[in-house]
Amino acid sequence: MRIKVDRDSKIALYIQIKNQIRDKIYSKVFPQNYILPSERELSDMIKVNRSTIIKAYQELKSEGLIASEVGKGTYVVYTDEIENNEKLHNFINRFYWDEIYSESSKQNYGDSISKIMKTDHGQRIISLSGGIPCPDSFPEEELKKIHMNLVENDMEKVFLHSPVDGYMPLKNEISNLLLNRGIKASPKEIMISSGSQQGLDLIVRTFINSGDVVLVEEPTFFAALQLFKTIGAKVIGVPIDNDGMRTDILKYLIDKHNPKCIYTIPTFQNPTGITMSMERRHELLNISSKYNVPIIEDDPYGELRYEGEDFPTLKALDRNNQVLYLSTFSKVIALGLRVGWIVAPEKVINKLSSLKQITDLHVNTLSQHTMYEFLKDGYYEKHVKRVKKEYLFKRNLMAMELQMDSLKECSFELPKGGYYIWYKVSNKLNSNSLIRRSVENGVNYMPGQLFYNKLGENNNYIRLNFTYPRREEIVERIKRLKDSIRQVR
Amino acid sequence: MRIKVDRDSKIALYIQIKNQIRDKIYSKVFPQNYILPSERELSDMIKVNRSTIIKAYQELKSEGLIASEVGKGTYVVYTDEIENNEKLHNFINRFYWDEIYSESSKQNYGDSISKIMKTDHGQRIISLSGGIPCPDSFPEEELKKIHMNLVENDMEKVFLHSPVDGYMPLKNEISNLLLNRGIKASPKEIMISSGSQQGLDLIVRTFINSGDVVLVEEPTFFAALQLFKTIGAKVIGVPIDNDGMRTDILKYLIDKHNPKCIYTIPTFQNPTGITMSMERRHELLNISSKYNVPIIEDDPYGELRYEGEDFPTLKALDRNNQVLYLSTFSKVIALGLRVGWIVAPEKVINKLSSLKQITDLHVNTLSQHTMYEFLKDGYYEKHVKRVKKEYLFKRNLMAMELQMDSLKECSFELPKGGYYIWYKVSNKLNSNSLIRRSVENGVNYMPGQLFYNKLGENNNYIRLNFTYPRREEIVERIKRLKDSIRQVR
Repeated sequence: MRIKVDRDSKIALYIQIKNQIRDKIYSKVFPQNYILPSERELSDMIKVNRSTIIKAYQELKSEGLIASEVGKGTYVVYTDEIENNEKLHNFINRFYWDEIYSESSKQNYGDSISKIMKTDHGQRIISLSGGIPCPDSFPEEELKKIHMNLVENDMEKVFLHSPVDGYMPLKNEISNLLLNRGIKASPKEIMISSGSQQGLDLIVRTFINSGDVVLVEEPTFFAALQLFKTIGAKVIGVPIDNDGMRTDILKYLIDKHNPKCIYTIPTFQNPTGITMSMERRHELLNISSKYNVPIIEDDPYGELRYEGEDFPTLKALDRNNQVLYLSTFSKVIALGLRVGWIVAPEKVINKLSSLKQITDLHVNTLSQHTMYEFLKDGYYEKHVKRVKKEYLFKRNLMAMELQMDSLKECSFELPKGGYYIWYKVSNKLNSNSLIRRSVENGVNYMPGQLFYNKLGENNNYIRLNFTYPRREEIVERIKRLKDSIRQVR
Repeated sequence: MRIKVDRDSKIALYIQIKNQIRDKIYSKVFPQNYILPSERELSDMIKVNRSTIIKAYQELKSEGLIASEVGKGTYVVYTDEIENNEKLHNFINRFYWDEIYSESSKQNYGDSISKIMKTDHGQRIISLSGGIPCPDSFPEEELKKIHMNLVENDMEKVFLHSPVDGYMPLKNEISNLLLNRGIKASPKEIMISSGSQQGLDLIVRTFINSGDVVLVEEPTFFAALQLFKTIGAKVIGVPIDNDGMRTDILKYLIDKHNPKCIYTIPTFQNPTGITMSMERRHELLNISSKYNVPIIEDDPYGELRYEGEDFPTLKALDRNNQVLYLSTFSKVIALGLRVGWIVAPEKVINKLSSLKQITDLHVNTLSQHTMYEFLKDGYYEKHVKRVKKEYLFKRNLMAMELQMDSLKECSFELPKGGYYIWYKVSNKLNSNSLIRRSVENGVNYMPGQLFYNKLGENNNYIRLNFTYPRREEIVERIKRLKDSIRQVR
């Protein structure tokens, strides 16, 4: 609604406003029942005293052109009847959106992540449930410097559009970074995505048909489970042990189900923290080659190793180009950046790009430039070293707190890296009672059943994140968690 | 690949490097045929003189552990045979990605936008083909100020994660902004998306099943056409005339096809520039109500009116909540921001959010904060006023250039707003010859057939963008375009 007032005019402001609204009603720009802004809203919009608006509205009311009703507001009333207008009224508020959702969106259960993200930034949540880096370890000084520089010197450039597959200098830097992970990928084999979450979404939509079978580790990342189900895939879980995905069972499942692809988080798996052994890595690649089933390797945590030797990624060992590799800066730097990437054969990158272009065109330009500068200036390596030190401390702290006066029938394996402790609680406990009691006691975690293919299964595990909470919060919250377990018992 | 060197050690650097690589080969961390970084790459990675690396590699070669081949690089050779390893070789480079694309991704034709976006920012392209705001009108000073402030005071906050449905203060500002368009929407009825392109993608995936019928204006925005087709929808075009979508034909098509939804760009339509009349708006809404077919209203250009009175959006006239509304800052401020929004009933927003959370989690936090400040500080209105002035000038300039010594059988209607002139060229011309000749002559445009449901149809139109090129470039390029038409004749 556009109302223009001319303060130099001899016509009183309230009359100017009244006339413009009246004209819009007569010309049917505002139709019958059209809801006008409230007096306060209109006064804010056109920066005119509220009493002026009240006067204008009063005039219009006395002319019978508008009326007010509690709950409805101020609306337009036609003095002469408009033909066939009754028909409309029969439909008011009768539009049933629930009945027309697509089949795929019905698969999209729950909104667990959404609830976690929906937090007030004013009061920092103290939660063990997220998968978020520690805000205190955020590389504030480095990013400040980079931003000041970009804003000073490249302002226009960082707001312009970018290529669909990503800003080339950033792709070059990522190509260098990948050498550390044993991956040789040219920039043409790299595509920037809005986090690795989008990378997975693009891959799923590009390769998977409704009805296709996807093999995943069980348990696995719940958003991946949801993505596969949303596209209509049949998800089948492959059990894991302390060496990662059970490749013996994998073979059997491939024979039986003829799957479209295998999804794996081989290093510091979400939620279990388990890392696939070298032997299993080779076996998995052999099986993938032999049966011609591609692998989606999701590697958000790989750089966060707190002890032992790094294993090469599957992509590093991939001589057949049978692995699509996903990674991100979200878990190492900050979630809000939304910068991740895909490594794939060039023709697959082109195919993924043609989907990305109609999905959201490209990743935010400023973020891409920021990450480029961050890598180029050598801040990345230093930052990773710093957060690893902090997360090692926090992992040990949480483990210590869990072990102290340890609870009967509760246990965990210490993960060698990553974000999570996968904590087994006594299976005599009712998991619903435990989560209710824990929330009452002010501690939040991810219930294990979210990570299973079939809801409700194996719910005697919970996922605890040790990177996001502050040190003192870890101590406090684990104490509360243990209290909750004792109380529910 | 992680190699650590200890400069204080008594062991020579090249020996340290050699030993670590040897260990990784023996422990099978580097398997048979594993490609090592080149000497130069490794020297860069671990900051050691290249000659040191050369020496280390020479040692490894003389031990028979690695070998080099032109084209392949330096790779690992096992001295003892590895069982069953021959099998692997049969599969090398035999992975046929082309054969496993999903049905939906086969629908995803062409990469026309991709090619436009793939431009070197160093040399500014001078193109009439894009849909990009003028970089010279970019609100540089205002955004600089906002950024400096954010970086100075809220650094941590602007990199943290955001709620899936968007940063609340930004949603509040957008709610205010929408009053100008006659739309009363609470923040709960608004969701922030990565441009309106993503908004449409989320809506499509949430509502449309493969096989559903979607009605669109014909011609219409090609990325929308592609999105509908990618999901497997049957797209049916409704003809438009100078008053917008032909509602008489719409009725007939609804009866015949029972469509899932109607997609429209009612104001300054892409590509035609046509604005739907008030009468048609009411008719369209009546039909949508009567037949219970929801409307997707795409409104990226609505604020860019250069003459005449604003019409209310369909959403403003929507008393049944039957319209899903999309808009964006891309066309008014900058494409690289990737900030748009959806207006929909609250429960639909919740449904869309649960898809967005598994798609890409949320929109870049810094962009959302930036746009919030831009709106809050009142820069937006002033900026819109400024660009409208510039675009009005450019529209008139392009129209003038097209009319001067006007070409026989070529014509256009002057659009009252938006981005494009839809230029009809003589249908005696071969459109392929014309585009080839035009590119040779250094001028680029969007061929009309891209905007039609069936490729190859109605190709005697071309879409010319007047917002992106500089004034002098408009003169120059239109001259070249007209030359190209004359030459092809």
